[in-house]
Amino acid sequence: MPRYKLTIEYDGAPFCGWQLQPVLPSVQGALEAAALATCGEAVRVHGAGRTDAGVHALGQVAHLDIAKPFRADRLRDALNAHVRPYPVAVLSAEIVPGSFEARFSAIRRHYRYRIVNRRSNLALEIGKVWWVPKPLDTDAMHRAAQVLIGKHDFTTFRDTECQAASPEKTLDVLDVVRSGDCVDIITSARSYLHSQVRSMVGSLVWVGEGRWSADDLAAALAARCRSACGPVAPPDGLYLVKVDY
Amino acid sequence: MPRYKLTIEYDGAPFCGWQLQPVLPSVQGALEAAALATCGEAVRVHGAGRTDAGVHALGQVAHLDIAKPFRADRLRDALNAHVRPYPVAVLSAEIVPGSFEARFSAIRRHYRYRIVNRRSNLALEIGKVWWVPKPLDTDAMHRAAQVLIGKHDFTTFRDTECQAASPEKTLDVLDVVRSGDCVDIITSARSYLHSQVRSMVGSLVWVGEGRWSADDLAAALAARCRSACGPVAPPDGLYLVKVDY
Repeated sequence: MPRYKLTIEYDGAPFCGWQLQPVLPSVQGALEAAALATCGEAVRVHGAGRTDAGVHALGQVAHLDIAKPFRADRLRDALNAHVRPYPVAVLSAEIVPGSFEARFSAIRRHYRYRIVNRRSNLALEIGKVWWVPKPLDTDAMHRAAQVLIGKHDFTTFRDTECQAASPEKTLDVLDVVRSGDCVDIITSARSYLHSQVRSMVGSLVWVGEGRWSADDLAAALAARCRSACGPVAPPDGLYLVKVDY
Repeated sequence: MPRYKLTIEYDGAPFCGWQLQPVLPSVQGALEAAALATCGEAVRVHGAGRTDAGVHALGQVAHLDIAKPFRADRLRDALNAHVRPYPVAVLSAEIVPGSFEARFSAIRRHYRYRIVNRRSNLALEIGKVWWVPKPLDTDAMHRAAQVLIGKHDFTTFRDTECQAASPEKTLDVLDVVRSGDCVDIITSARSYLHSQVRSMVGSLVWVGEGRWSADDLAAALAARCRSACGPVAPPDGLYLVKVDY
């Protein structure tokens, strides 16, 4: 039974998240329904990252096994035809070895968090970015972010519902980049705890607003305590950009 | 009575266009209602460009006269507070001489037309770009576009409802630029005929798909006849970027 790797873009707004839930619409559920309509098989679609409600993807990766033979590009087109009207697009499908696992074969996940930092409210990017009206010192944010790089116990930046066995993660990249009113926070790691990126982003915004120094951020990390975290950034600005294998 | 110049961003989707209409929601109507709520005066908001239904703006310009004295930044904030929930943001307000006219003082208008050129449907940018699934030869599009530069009778690229006195316009810039799957068409001119940008874009897409050569585009221009035009591109991808004074 051939295994297919899918690369997927979606708007997270209408979904309860990636993961299948009993009643609410999920990205996984939308894709499994499209797979059933495509090939008549009830298949499981396994994702690389379980994005939360409202979080977007430019390059989520998933795998599925289908008994009926399909050319990869025909499978991509058929899934796209059946997944509508959900805002989900299968960008590519390819046949991979049966040993490929979207989640467990991943060696690095790249996220981008988009902030619009201006006095005026949003118009064109409502739901796609976090609007922060107070001026952000992005140089200070970038410098402070570097204290989170490396292997740490990220309990402070971990949702209380996180199911990971260990709170230790290794963060490879956490860059804060300004371009005019747009502030991007770029991060890469093998994996993250539940809500880790949004928790780091919210705390970095406190640094940018001058409420926290880099030392305060370091102290929050060292506290290993959820209540030491800054605010959790809204899902609107978060994008799963790419997964490396 | 001080005159204020506003720079405005909006999502065109929920509007019948810039211009006030009796029943349908317009950007002008939304701003005039916000001005009334702000200062208790029924004022006219004059725009630089009458964008069509569904066309967006990153930098529309308008002016209005208000008897009640306001600091410019307070007017901006008050208009933004009152224009919600419409997807309109006043980016800046400034006091200008009474001789300033948003429409008639403008010396150049810059538009950008965004195309996503890929096989897979849209997900994150639905309503914000034109999805063209057939591969586009953007080098051919850019070369062909240059035949439209300069002063011409643009009757071919003019909506039949256009009210301009003359079909002659001078086009300064028409560039086609690809970045991955994204194709941008950038144009600058003092002014345009009704639907001129979308008519040029639709015809350029015919060039990109190989249906038309640059000579066909030149022949369409020379025909000075609306029926010689290619398709009119949808409003989703069009942005009024900036107005020069």
